Amino acid sequence: MGKFNNSINLLKNSVQFLYQQRGLHTARGMACSRFEYVKNYEQDDSILPNVWIVIRLDGKGFHTFCKAHNFAKPNDANALNLMNTAAVSVMEEFRDITLAYGQSDEYSFVFRKETNVFNRRAAKLLSYVTSLFTSAYVFNWSRWMSSKSLLYPPCFDGRIVLYPSDQNLRDYLSWRQADVHINNLYNTAFWNLVLESGLSNQEAEAELRGTFSADKNEMLFTKFGINYNNLPVMFRKGTVLLRKRVKTEGDGGLNRQLIVPHHDDMIREKFWKDHSELLGKYKPGDYVCAAEDIPPVLLSQIEKLNLDEDKGKVGENYS
Amino acid sequence: MGKFNNSINLLKNSVQFLYQQRGLHTARGMACSRFEYVKNYEQDDSILPNVWIVIRLDGKGFHTFCKAHNFAKPNDANALNLMNTAAVSVMEEFRDITLAYGQSDEYSFVFRKETNVFNRRAAKLLSYVTSLFTSAYVFNWSRWMSSKSLLYPPCFDGRIVLYPSDQNLRDYLSWRQADVHINNLYNTAFWNLVLESGLSNQEAEAELRGTFSADKNEMLFTKFGINYNNLPVMFRKGTVLLRKRVKTEGDGGLNRQLIVPHHDDMIREKFWKDHSELLGKYKPGDYVCAAEDIPPVLLSQIEKLNLDEDKGKVGENYS
Amino acid sequence: MGKFNNSINLLKNSVQFLYQQRGLHTARGMACSRFEYVKNYEQDDSILPNVWIVIRLDGKGFHTFCKAHNFAKPNDANALNLMNTAAVSVMEEFRDITLAYGQSDEYSFVFRKETNVFNRRAAKLLSYVTSLFTSAYVFNWSRWMSSKSLLYPPCFDGRIVLYPSDQNLRDYLSWRQADVHINNLYNTAFWNLVLESGLSNQEAEAELRGTFSADKNEMLFTKFGINYNNLPVMFRKGTVLLRKRVKTEGDGGLNRQLIVPHHDDMIREKFWKDHSELLGKYKPGDYVCAAEDIPPVLLSQIEKLNLDEDKGKVGENYS
Amino acid sequence: MGKFNNSINLLKNSVQFLYQQRGLHTARGMACSRFEYVKNYEQDDSILPNVWIVIRLDGKGFHTFCKAHNFAKPNDANALNLMNTAAVSVMEEFRDITLAYGQSDEYSFVFRKETNVFNRRAAKLLSYVTSLFTSAYVFNWSRWMSSKSLLYPPCFDGRIVLYPSDQNLRDYLSWRQADVHINNLYNTAFWNLVLESGLSNQEAEAELRGTFSADKNEMLFTKFGINYNNLPVMFRKGTVLLRKRVKTEGDGGLNRQLIVPHHDDMIREKFWKDHSELLGKYKPGDYVCAAEDIPPVLLSQIEKLNLDEDKGKVGENYS
Repeated sequence: MGKFNNSINLLKNSVQFLYQQRGLHTARGMACSRFEYVKNYEQDDSILPNVWIVIRLDGKGFHTFCKAHNFAKPNDANALNLMNTAAVSVMEEFRDITLAYGQSDEYSFVFRKETNVFNRRAAKLLSYVTSLFTSAYVFNWSRWMSSKSLLYPPCFDGRIVLYPSDQNLRDYLSWRQADVHINNLYNTAFWNLVLESGLSNQEAEAELRGTFSADKNEMLFTKFGINYNNLPVMFRKGTVLLRKRVKTEGDGGLNRQLIVPHHDDMIREKFWKDHSELLGKYKPGDYVCAAEDIPPVLLSQIEKLNLDEDKGKVGENYS
Repeated sequence: MGKFNNSINLLKNSVQFLYQQRGLHTARGMACSRFEYVKNYEQDDSILPNVWIVIRLDGKGFHTFCKAHNFAKPNDANALNLMNTAAVSVMEEFRDITLAYGQSDEYSFVFRKETNVFNRRAAKLLSYVTSLFTSAYVFNWSRWMSSKSLLYPPCFDGRIVLYPSDQNLRDYLSWRQADVHINNLYNTAFWNLVLESGLSNQEAEAELRGTFSADKNEMLFTKFGINYNNLPVMFRKGTVLLRKRVKTEGDGGLNRQLIVPHHDDMIREKFWKDHSELLGKYKPGDYVCAAEDIPPVLLSQIEKLNLDEDKGKVGENYS
Repeated sequence: MGKFNNSINLLKNSVQFLYQQRGLHTARGMACSRFEYVKNYEQDDSILPNVWIVIRLDGKGFHTFCKAHNFAKPNDANALNLMNTAAVSVMEEFRDITLAYGQSDEYSFVFRKETNVFNRRAAKLLSYVTSLFTSAYVFNWSRWMSSKSLLYPPCFDGRIVLYPSDQNLRDYLSWRQADVHINNLYNTAFWNLVLESGLSNQEAEAELRGTFSADKNEMLFTKFGINYNNLPVMFRKGTVLLRKRVKTEGDGGLNRQLIVPHHDDMIREKFWKDHSELLGKYKPGDYVCAAEDIPPVLLSQIEKLNLDEDKGKVGENYS
Repeated sequence: MGKFNNSINLLKNSVQFLYQQRGLHTARGMACSRFEYVKNYEQDDSILPNVWIVIRLDGKGFHTFCKAHNFAKPNDANALNLMNTAAVSVMEEFRDITLAYGQSDEYSFVFRKETNVFNRRAAKLLSYVTSLFTSAYVFNWSRWMSSKSLLYPPCFDGRIVLYPSDQNLRDYLSWRQADVHINNLYNTAFWNLVLESGLSNQEAEAELRGTFSADKNEMLFTKFGINYNNLPVMFRKGTVLLRKRVKTEGDGGLNRQLIVPHHDDMIREKFWKDHSELLGKYKPGDYVCAAEDIPPVLLSQIEKLNLDEDKGKVGENYS
């Protein structure tokens, strides 16, 4: 093997030499090369191959932020769609995100096990996703919140979690979706007690203490005439963004791969059968809808698409 | 030691039990607790104590972004001040950042060795700083770029680098500042050749190939009547943000701890003597300036301060 | 949730307090508590859950070691059995190692995905396995190498590699086993050329340069009358150690769970069907053999077993 | 920069190509290359530059081991010297270990901040040090424990801890040395109560509960006529191994760099002044002693040295 290793070493030395040349070249003197050693303090943080990479973002101080911006209670459809819009921006940029799931002030992004984007370097992935989401959130604020001005810059923190098996991934998503159910039922009851019955926050909290799901459903129905299951599904289930080939009926007949919002129950087997591309060989399925039923987040993609085509725009902004 | 360990174990079990209770309580059934195990897949990423933590953000695809938004060449003072403004937001939020350094489309934030913010968890620090910077950049766009509208959300990636010794930290900052010198001299010569002499980009590149600093200085002077050392110091040295007790003379006499832009040479010993709080016991020094000489980034802090005081605002947005 | 968190915090403070007490108690003064902060510099290195953990040990400088101790060429059966014996010691200690694979001067240990031994802390696992293997190697030297004395302490380095899927694990083991085939065929040809035909090392190397497997098989057969496939299977396939319920026929009828050496081809599907416990629900299968066919490494376990039972020994040494 | 990057990429591709060739070459077919991807699952674990690297080994189950081998109580000088001998083997192999400290069944090894051995890869360093120490312990057993046979293979676990500053390192060593003082005083009192006064273990424990250092000193003196400070310093302070240029007076006049045991107090400033090479520019100091005062661990190095020179041995075993 000596001969082989010699060849390798020869080449490695050449690379090393070229880098040194570059150092000198860049610095036009000694300054740069003297300091440049600090670059070696950056540590490799590549993620283990063949595991699901999940990045979850959480609103920072959103309790205060929601109050300051007077979000509707218990759910603000525009604020949720602003989150969805920001998440679509992230998915447009990262083709290897096959699913994103949002609820309340959090969003999870799932990268394919096989992804090699940024050589799977953790800090690159985490910071880029967080930055792009945040940027798109602020950028699109006025589109969804037209009447309100943004008072200060909102922000999100992020984390990376790795899941080796498909079951782990499904359980993760189930965990987040179970969370939205629990919280939304509670919040719906709470805010009706406060806003409709005029209780103070403390009184509403006391009223709900120790109650079970059935109790809260019952209360909503009897006290406020609300059938919880008839509330908007986005509030009850959160939003699942999936890449689909979108075919609209009617005018012009769109046939494009876009990011489509769903509000299905991911805890059920059915979801994974309906979207078998997620755990199987990845090839986005079809999504057909009537032109008048296009959900707003999808609609804005189609509008942007038309706009870009008019301008003859190609390529990506960040490459 | 058995007795001690018994006490500890008893308490640990109690904590465990309470967590289990909470699981059941939250889930109001089995759903949540069945999935909640996925939380244990989050891995500890706490940073080694007693090292300097540097977070550096870099504009993603800013070559395209600058072009699209028609930034002045070779330097756009407003764009740089927008970066500075975003960095000030980050420093206002993180009291343990004692120095930030920006040049071109990058910004470095230096946390004190002793910081315990977010328990030194790497992903928290990285994502929060990246998000807040990005958010503040978009939020403050119109303040600095009034005549231009933002065409798409800009974004930044980030990395964490650790430096054990003070000398390492100084060398890191020197490295970044040597970089701005090299690049700015080159860019100044390049853009004068293009914009003033009417060369194509390729011709300008060819003209500069193989030249040394002295050559470029000479060319700027003879061809364009530019004394490089008289160009704005922010272009030549970048911006160093430091926390200082600001005392303005004249009207009202401000005396407040604020974040002050400097454009000193960090490669020189003098900088570290003038700001001895950075490597010594941390206690921000004084900054005195005449009311008419306040730099714009500082001025906007003072204005905001006055505004907040008028409103009786207290506390932080993100807590 | 405030109430819950209060309870948790109360308990955490109690734990903290007890630890502080212990610090003081241990130190009988200030000394210990003043220094004890250094303990916090130890970093968490827990391994991601639900992945296969493989620890591979490699002999350090074994080229020299084999020469110094005059190991038989191309294979020394006693030296290989010494490796096997050391590996058995490791498997006896770690019940969660379900398979170990050895060839030449290396050994790989496979922990079950679900293992929680040492809370999956990487350094603990790595150092303990490495130490125990090394110790057992030196300890058992004279049993296998009776006529030779050990001239200096041999040693091994180790690494941890994680494999998320069953296929990854199988490919890892196939990789190591393909390696033994390639190397052993080459070595067998090489050493026959040297020892039987009297070629120098360089001449033998030249003779084999550029040859394919078929060439070497042919040469062994025509020049040396060796049918490669009839050579001892341990040399050709390495040794796979599996936990089995051993049932011997004849005298007394042993029925015990022990560690049994196999020399099967792990690249083939058959191996994984025959030992379906490895990838399925873990429950060691049966291993039946006639009393006169017990392989030496297994025999020594049985002897030790009888010895321990005579002495009424119970329990583990290292707990 | 395009040209430079092109050259780099060209070279990188060549390296890649050669590796692929090697894969095919090694495998003589497809088998190997198909599996070899598993090698990419090994993750980089290089240690941050410019920090002190401490590896500490701890005896595993040594309570049982000491009992089984009937070690003298409270201290067994031979067992301690066996530990010291094993540690000397490790220091002989790793020139960048400048200090090792042992007490009871533990040993700490300190690598210079600048070390680049094994490219600072954590697993390599940890496993190699652990393995060599263990191996040397078993190998040298009979030299120190002549009358006792080793009943089963002893083993050690290991950990790596990083210390950024010199003060951190000193505090670490102080922590370990404070520990030996506390424990040894307790153990000396305890075993005298048991062995001399005939108390049971429980009675001795009860007798010592709540006592302070002064109480135990007093008890040792009044009850057993022992002046604690006159006990062997190795028992009271542990053993610090340092690299020194050893100059013996008398016969032949040795002048060689060797590893010398010290029993100084590392908590005191004096130690760091006497051995200023440790924190300053590394250049081992002198150690002068009369031929009749050479400590046993050093003596055995000198004997081995003479032996090796007689045999004309050069070089290292493990390279």
